[in-house]
Amino acid sequence: MTHHGPAIILIGAQLGENIGKAVRAMYNFGLTDLRLVAPRDGWPNEAAYPSAAGADFILDKAQVFNTAAEAIADLQFIYATTARKRGMIKKIVTPEHCADLMRCAINNGQKGGILFGAERSGLVNDDISLCDAIVTVPLNPDFSSLNLAQAVILLSYEWYKSGDATTKEYVEMQDAVPASSQDMQRLIEHMESELTDAGYFRHEKRIPTLQRNIRNIFKRTNLTKEEVTTMRGIIKTLATGGGEGWKAEKAAKD
Amino acid sequence: MTHHGPAIILIGAQLGENIGKAVRAMYNFGLTDLRLVAPRDGWPNEAAYPSAAGADFILDKAQVFNTAAEAIADLQFIYATTARKRGMIKKIVTPEHCADLMRCAINNGQKGGILFGAERSGLVNDDISLCDAIVTVPLNPDFSSLNLAQAVILLSYEWYKSGDATTKEYVEMQDAVPASSQDMQRLIEHMESELTDAGYFRHEKRIPTLQRNIRNIFKRTNLTKEEVTTMRGIIKTLATGGGEGWKAEKAAKD
Repeated sequence: MTHHGPAIILIGAQLGENIGKAVRAMYNFGLTDLRLVAPRDGWPNEAAYPSAAGADFILDKAQVFNTAAEAIADLQFIYATTARKRGMIKKIVTPEHCADLMRCAINNGQKGGILFGAERSGLVNDDISLCDAIVTVPLNPDFSSLNLAQAVILLSYEWYKSGDATTKEYVEMQDAVPASSQDMQRLIEHMESELTDAGYFRHEKRIPTLQRNIRNIFKRTNLTKEEVTTMRGIIKTLATGGGEGWKAEKAAKD
Repeated sequence: MTHHGPAIILIGAQLGENIGKAVRAMYNFGLTDLRLVAPRDGWPNEAAYPSAAGADFILDKAQVFNTAAEAIADLQFIYATTARKRGMIKKIVTPEHCADLMRCAINNGQKGGILFGAERSGLVNDDISLCDAIVTVPLNPDFSSLNLAQAVILLSYEWYKSGDATTKEYVEMQDAVPASSQDMQRLIEHMESELTDAGYFRHEKRIPTLQRNIRNIFKRTNLTKEEVTTMRGIIKTLATGGGEGWKAEKAAKD
């Protein structure tokens, strides 16, 4: 990727520890442009470093401004994070959609950022009116106490995801090779043959259903070639030692 | 929703504070079934309460087990969170896909959970082998230091999103009514009329392009009926006071 992600702009952040946590969240998802507007305890603030978990360079190069307007002066799109309704006629987007819109703008060469308010009070309406849209994290309406670092991590995560090509589901095959249909067919035939010898298929009418069930069970396992060998060893063991035991037990019961 | 979400199962969690943070994250996204396997400092643990931010009832009703196998005994699907490759042939899913799969299973009446390992060490391979799949958060490969509470919040967030019907983009209209095409047309005609009087359309050939540009600018604003009135007041003011001033200034320059 040649384009940079959005700036994270913290307005009136109170605790250095929370700034550090926000930075850790940012860098986990590849964001490095931190802008601080009037941080309560001044800047630099040593209290921010321990919770940044090593992402110190982001704290070192953070820019500090007096007002939100100055902090966003060079940016072309701005989102404001807030949970409360503001009585403003303003677009409200989900974090996921926000990420898609930002990705699109940044891919077009634009620069932008996301505003986060102070821990207790959040953003003021004047700052929100500077923004293109409000982004609101969907939350349990009975318990919506998202803190600053949590808000930053969720927005940063969605940003990262919007550019991430990880397959949603895959299997690490290591050096293993998936079994072929023939491998599976031979395994199932081996088992059915042993089961037939052991008297498992007693009710003629149920045999086709039982065979389909067995094939379905085995097909769901997605065995490797090596695992087919393991399974054949297991069947062989059961059919001789364990299998004999089962027959003896059954004979005793009948 | 009548169905419950997945259980959050913390194995060998070290700090009560982190258990509390995990619970806060859970309840933000509607999850309430906490299961603890061999928590380092025993249970109950007063240190968990302050960081739970009020979601105490989840801590109060947490179940405690000696082993992962006991904690998941009643569950039908289990995901294991881990970032490290494990050399196991096991399905790996993204958090978003995990949420979809869990939602699907739970909608089918199943019960399940997500395993999280201890802060420093993560999950052991024996516990992972009890799971249906591994879920891995996509992270900046240069800085992938996700802590326990962060992992819980991201998985819980995706769970909540998978059942959340929030429109990805909408506008809170309050009591306002969007302007009609006719309202907009009259606004633009008003402005063009004032601009014509003020001598703005000097180059005959450029007039159609200018008019289209003006219409595009105004269309992008998505004005309400009230805002149309505001804009017409602005145009009228500029055309008399400000407009006269502009003409005088221009005359002085020419």
